[in-house]
Amino acid sequence: MGLAGGFDAWIVTVGSELLIGRVVNTNLAWLGARLTLLGYKVRGCLVVPDILDDIAWAFKTALSRGARVVISSGGLGPTFDDKTVEGLAKAFSLKLALNEEALKLVRKKYEEKGYSLTESRVKMAILPEGSSPIPNPVGTAPGVRLKLGETLMFLLPGVPAEMKAMFSKYVEPELKRIGPQIFFVERSMRVYGVPESEAAPIIKRVLKISDNLYIKSHPKGSELGEPVLELHITASGKSRELLEELVGKAINMLLELLSEKEARIEILK
Amino acid sequence: MGLAGGFDAWIVTVGSELLIGRVVNTNLAWLGARLTLLGYKVRGCLVVPDILDDIAWAFKTALSRGARVVISSGGLGPTFDDKTVEGLAKAFSLKLALNEEALKLVRKKYEEKGYSLTESRVKMAILPEGSSPIPNPVGTAPGVRLKLGETLMFLLPGVPAEMKAMFSKYVEPELKRIGPQIFFVERSMRVYGVPESEAAPIIKRVLKISDNLYIKSHPKGSELGEPVLELHITASGKSRELLEELVGKAINMLLELLSEKEARIEILK
Repeated sequence: MGLAGGFDAWIVTVGSELLIGRVVNTNLAWLGARLTLLGYKVRGCLVVPDILDDIAWAFKTALSRGARVVISSGGLGPTFDDKTVEGLAKAFSLKLALNEEALKLVRKKYEEKGYSLTESRVKMAILPEGSSPIPNPVGTAPGVRLKLGETLMFLLPGVPAEMKAMFSKYVEPELKRIGPQIFFVERSMRVYGVPESEAAPIIKRVLKISDNLYIKSHPKGSELGEPVLELHITASGKSRELLEELVGKAINMLLELLSEKEARIEILK
Repeated sequence: MGLAGGFDAWIVTVGSELLIGRVVNTNLAWLGARLTLLGYKVRGCLVVPDILDDIAWAFKTALSRGARVVISSGGLGPTFDDKTVEGLAKAFSLKLALNEEALKLVRKKYEEKGYSLTESRVKMAILPEGSSPIPNPVGTAPGVRLKLGETLMFLLPGVPAEMKAMFSKYVEPELKRIGPQIFFVERSMRVYGVPESEAAPIIKRVLKISDNLYIKSHPKGSELGEPVLELHITASGKSRELLEELVGKAINMLLELLSEKEARIEILK
């Protein structure tokens, strides 16, 4: 399975630039790693263009798939194609209105720089009913926090520096508080000289130790005329000590069984 | 809108490593760029873990959203968690059976290296009914091509070198043949000294020139104490000459209107 954690989390990344390949989706990797470390199971990611109906569809889909937490990035700025907030409102038929708290945040940002409020700037303070703004310590567009039933949604900007700062400062503390107390342990090893198809039955055997264990193999090409595999061993559960023990046991067993195949093995971390 | 092209294409990337943030989804960017250049409109990407039901859900979802082309990457190898082919079969209730053509490809790969066929290796030749294998010039797992109604699906491996080689050699020629004759032109410029919220109404005005035109602004931070924006101007349509003319006109208009705001402008390409 390969996913640690308790509650299901979904990531929605908004932006046509991700789909036409102009920008690599690093926000997904960053958010996925943070959510996993916090004990959430990142169950899927939807990448959608700057099209209102597509964004609304993504939020609805994440909810209908059982997300307890949804994090979006992208589409919060002042331009005509920043449509994520409107998409969220459309998804759940929520009214949009000027949010005084958000307006205060936006006004303060521009006043500091000597700019006044314009229509494009005020747009960033129009939020769906029931939501609250998340301050942006780096840029100008506030994020949005909305709880719908049991599901918490956080809309963050697409600029990585803004997204990361807001997640760390405002989203992570809440996710820690409400989240499952689940730990995640990972180790990696590199295996030379054994093709993936020969490692497959060995991995299958080692996995029988525990349901909390997961091993994934990544073929790394065979530039040296011999196969190179990276094995990624992870475990998740409630006790860090037991997990360390479990992963150690799995590594020993892999070392033993792969050595029988005359593999050379390098432990990475 | 920001998406060029005629037929809708969807990308499905399979792999828990993408969701726990261990691997950045570069396959999405590469496939998105290639499909866009071929004249397809990449309408969305679904990132799912190595869970059979989730993979099946992704294929079904892409189809139900109107995809004419679906490209997947990941989950084609010999290990227990390579489940993409089974997921495709499950999505559309197709029977899985040993494909003789695929078996020939797999056997040849291993015989060249002096290995024999094992259960894990034969697994890579079990395909859904109606599909055909795509040769893998770099690795061992064949890809899968399946046409369902009007929709063409191509399943490719997750290892970037294998995926790219197979797309270029076997997928792209077919997509070129059946695809719309639509061109895509792009240019970029960097704008210093004008905040995004002030550029927004200017962009809106320039966009009125044509429906085929799209301009997206990416704030690049303000390390120098001044705002920096990257503007990405794209156009798509049937005549390359008209598109070049259109983008040129948009750039001239942006230069004129942004200069009035005392911006410094750098044309990137």
